[in-house]
Amino acid sequence: MRILVTGGTGYIGSHTVLTLLEGGHDVVVVDNLSNSSEESLRRVGELAGREATFVKADITDEAALDAVFGEHSPQAVIHFAGLKAVGESVSIPLDYYYNNVAGTIALLRTMQRHDVRTIVFSSSATVYGEHNPTPYIEKMEIGAMNPYGRTKEQIEDILSDLGASDERWHIALLRYFNPVGAHPSGRIGEDPQGIPNNLVPFIAQVAVGRREKLMVFGGDYETPDGTCQRDFIHVVDLAEGHAAALRYLEDHAGVFRWNLGSGKGTSVLEMLHAFEAAVGAPIPYEIAPRRAGDLPAFWADPSSALHDLGWSTTKTVAQMCEDHWRWQKNNPMGYRAP
Amino acid sequence: MRILVTGGTGYIGSHTVLTLLEGGHDVVVVDNLSNSSEESLRRVGELAGREATFVKADITDEAALDAVFGEHSPQAVIHFAGLKAVGESVSIPLDYYYNNVAGTIALLRTMQRHDVRTIVFSSSATVYGEHNPTPYIEKMEIGAMNPYGRTKEQIEDILSDLGASDERWHIALLRYFNPVGAHPSGRIGEDPQGIPNNLVPFIAQVAVGRREKLMVFGGDYETPDGTCQRDFIHVVDLAEGHAAALRYLEDHAGVFRWNLGSGKGTSVLEMLHAFEAAVGAPIPYEIAPRRAGDLPAFWADPSSALHDLGWSTTKTVAQMCEDHWRWQKNNPMGYRAP
Repeated sequence: MRILVTGGTGYIGSHTVLTLLEGGHDVVVVDNLSNSSEESLRRVGELAGREATFVKADITDEAALDAVFGEHSPQAVIHFAGLKAVGESVSIPLDYYYNNVAGTIALLRTMQRHDVRTIVFSSSATVYGEHNPTPYIEKMEIGAMNPYGRTKEQIEDILSDLGASDERWHIALLRYFNPVGAHPSGRIGEDPQGIPNNLVPFIAQVAVGRREKLMVFGGDYETPDGTCQRDFIHVVDLAEGHAAALRYLEDHAGVFRWNLGSGKGTSVLEMLHAFEAAVGAPIPYEIAPRRAGDLPAFWADPSSALHDLGWSTTKTVAQMCEDHWRWQKNNPMGYRAP
Repeated sequence: MRILVTGGTGYIGSHTVLTLLEGGHDVVVVDNLSNSSEESLRRVGELAGREATFVKADITDEAALDAVFGEHSPQAVIHFAGLKAVGESVSIPLDYYYNNVAGTIALLRTMQRHDVRTIVFSSSATVYGEHNPTPYIEKMEIGAMNPYGRTKEQIEDILSDLGASDERWHIALLRYFNPVGAHPSGRIGEDPQGIPNNLVPFIAQVAVGRREKLMVFGGDYETPDGTCQRDFIHVVDLAEGHAAALRYLEDHAGVFRWNLGSGKGTSVLEMLHAFEAAVGAPIPYEIAPRRAGDLPAFWADPSSALHDLGWSTTKTVAQMCEDHWRWQKNNPMGYRAP
């Protein structure tokens, strides 16, 4: 298959491109490089032994998308492109709605014009909001708590209405839990710009000496060790989930929602200690006050994805940390020259 | 004040432009004329004794909007432009999300670039959905039931997040109930293209001989006469509500939500009989099966608008019908030559 991957130079995107290339697909990546580097794709090409085609373009630019579809005739789209920092989305929500929501609308209009109606969308567990009990199941009513999450929710609604309006659409909404880790080669991985928003990239930057210590937000939650519990998923498992969803869509029209998670909670301190084991050294941390908006604990019920896709996570927390650390150690400044 | 009105050639838009011109404001109308006629503005100019400036442009076109803001320097925006047929929104949702949601995002980005941060948005009672009891009050949690309603809900969310992110924004979300009637001159009014989606325009077209009879969907609801009850509001009252909201925003930053309705329910048959009284002749109708998605009864609690804006409806159902009929009788084909 020829697959268009938007945001394919980013963290999850690059790992998914690698999985697709290894699976024999042709891949065209569209990315505006606003928060990523083309270097990731160069390394993906090395690892796969074959290259993805890269087009620098913005998904909000329909003329540019038209040119890509005209030239490359993709048969399906995996749509990662979007802004993703919760805190930033509170400060500059219009940028989030523009890039994520208006960008997706532009992409879908272009797909429709070119008769491409298969899309795997990068949604998030954040759509479940705070009114649902854990573990989350796909049929729960969604309701995000911040602008970032609302962009994901709005896009899910748009795709759901689109799928209901025209049975030719094949749509997967993948709700990610907490992606961590890196390809075991240590060649590609997460490369956050500025201060990392997520736990493991932050820990990794402390371990490599770029940050002084980890702040653990809240040590007095009603959880086994008092710190928040999350459902961490190895990015390579996540990439496999995309390939599995795409295979499913080949034979199934409609709109499908799948959690991609491990199904179990790991606390912040458990993750920290697992990372210390991978590094072989202690990592300084400090318990800080709770952060507004953080839920104490959530994880996926991943049984739908197992049932429908035959997919489940295979990698342990130890592997996540070892792989993440290998990437960070070998690339202390990410894709930039050290 | 110099006010930009998007969708200002449409039904509610044209009446609001008239109210603004009569109130001494300068008005610039932006409309793509996709579902309306510039003739409405010509007549508004006659009625007001002064003209609004008209620019044919699409709100999804940021370059065109930039030119309008650059040339006319509006200080506030009243935003009506959008697609509005519920049934059509189910068939072609992407057109709705593009025009309504992406269009509003483009408008807001343009406003921000030009330092204009006052906007009155044309929302709808449809955002309340089916899970709320009547009468609706603004603090209820919203949840629309169809793509049209979801575009309104998404825009409300975008505007709410935007207002929360930057205290320089002055934002009013006006939730209309069921606008009917016309300016008492009979010169401007609702001019639906094709088969009318709403009750009163349909009745009016039956009365004027363009349709054979009214189909009343459902005669066995748990309401006094078995037909659905709605909260009808005279379009001139509605236009005054916009002017009142704009006055309020001059002194108040933040995000405000107001129901614009009368606060009472009128049944389909009551409205039919009121229209018969205005016409002075019976109007043929037939009770048909219920229509999926119709709620039996809803109306506004309009006390917030009264409290904050000093606004309430002043016109009766009889006046709505008389004015609507005058418009229809004098303009049997709307703004097109008969």
